[in-house]
Amino acid sequence: MRKSFYISDGTAITSEVFGHALLSLFPVQFKHVTIPFIETAEQALEVNQKISVSFQETGERPLVFHTIVNPEVRQIICQSEGVNYDFLNHFVPQIEEALGVKAKPEKHRTHSIHETTYDIRIEAVNFALANDDGSNLKDYGEADIILCGVSRSGKTPTSLYLALQYGIKAANYPFTEDDMRDTLKLPAVLKRFKHKLFGLTIAAQRLHDIRTERRANSRYASLQQCRIELREVENLYRKEKIPFLDSTAFSIEEISAKILAITGLERRKY
Amino acid sequence: MRKSFYISDGTAITSEVFGHALLSLFPVQFKHVTIPFIETAEQALEVNQKISVSFQETGERPLVFHTIVNPEVRQIICQSEGVNYDFLNHFVPQIEEALGVKAKPEKHRTHSIHETTYDIRIEAVNFALANDDGSNLKDYGEADIILCGVSRSGKTPTSLYLALQYGIKAANYPFTEDDMRDTLKLPAVLKRFKHKLFGLTIAAQRLHDIRTERRANSRYASLQQCRIELREVENLYRKEKIPFLDSTAFSIEEISAKILAITGLERRKY
Repeated sequence: MRKSFYISDGTAITSEVFGHALLSLFPVQFKHVTIPFIETAEQALEVNQKISVSFQETGERPLVFHTIVNPEVRQIICQSEGVNYDFLNHFVPQIEEALGVKAKPEKHRTHSIHETTYDIRIEAVNFALANDDGSNLKDYGEADIILCGVSRSGKTPTSLYLALQYGIKAANYPFTEDDMRDTLKLPAVLKRFKHKLFGLTIAAQRLHDIRTERRANSRYASLQQCRIELREVENLYRKEKIPFLDSTAFSIEEISAKILAITGLERRKY
Repeated sequence: MRKSFYISDGTAITSEVFGHALLSLFPVQFKHVTIPFIETAEQALEVNQKISVSFQETGERPLVFHTIVNPEVRQIICQSEGVNYDFLNHFVPQIEEALGVKAKPEKHRTHSIHETTYDIRIEAVNFALANDDGSNLKDYGEADIILCGVSRSGKTPTSLYLALQYGIKAANYPFTEDDMRDTLKLPAVLKRFKHKLFGLTIAAQRLHDIRTERRANSRYASLQQCRIELREVENLYRKEKIPFLDSTAFSIEEISAKILAITGLERRKY
């Protein structure tokens, strides 16, 4: 299988995103190799060697996506037997021209600690954990958003993603089987926070599959019960005009990006 | 403040990473605007309009980082009054040449749901939550890694990040004040999983600050107690040859990338 390397003097997250965005356009399978924190000429020579070995073994030049600030390190990587893609250096001169300002590459630490936003994100993660699954209703005043939905409709991973990536404080509130014995009504505790509510729903079959993995052959997992619960929550969302989205076909990244787009919540990440 | 737009027909995560990696090289402050899911000509015209308004208001052309597959949508964005940066289209021809394969842009959904890896990530998040803070020792056999350290040294956010981003099952085990009354020894429950342990440590002053926000003026937060606990865990890591790292100056992204680099754990993300 063709190899693709992601190399950086930092975390290599940027080079991974850069390379994957491009390679996802091609109907080709790759073996992915990420090599972060290459900061010295010695380390760079080792990586150069790895790329050459891969070329010799497979007869195909590996693709090499890199984001390296140190010129010496970059040069050594560029002299390897891989095919090099270096988007930083391609675009920097263009941006310098648009801004009328020279780049200051020593500042290149895209995914390093930023005093101002770092604590915000950790605090948001702690908030999401403390307010997961309706475990804590007293902090809802502090929440940026309260995700609601039935069990296993994607609330918890989404709230954690919103916290980790965007520093958004997301509580989540589960509608339970008990709430559905009658027509589902907006629980009293949520009424004053209605403007913060965002509903999730999911296809009944998919929910049934997910719940079956958790508790096979239970009432909880039955397709019938899934259908009842989803009908009830969707009716509630419509009646109460709570914005909602069907998570079935979407990744956590997409659900989160859609929630931000719909609610207008601001990212706290830079 | 100069505006920077991140536009995509998907989540816009790639265009954000693309733009931020570049802008982080410049000593300039920006107002960041992300606009995801631009899929129709009509939506694109609206965005085009927003960019023009921003130019008229500020007198400075906004920077526009975009990753758009649909040619019609892309063309409308490119005709705006912003300065356009489009790394997909710059690099696609080069990669086509290297691979001898044409791009199939309909497949461009970098951050969308991938059947094979999606469930792995959700399962890993559930695992991290169920095995947070030593709450569940019986699943350690299933863990890819067990993060250990004192309270508030970064275990929980790191285990969640490893799960969400990389699909890695990370349990975490806290060494408590009680464990330190005497010289800290490796708890019996961890002995058979010693090969999976990874230690975190942190500067005493930083730990003191973090704990003070949580429980001011407690013994738990005192600098003295922080020093004792950190000395004990670091001695244990050294004695038991447990790989460890000091999280003080690092972001969650960096800690996670370093852990993967040190342990050789494979990303399950593609």
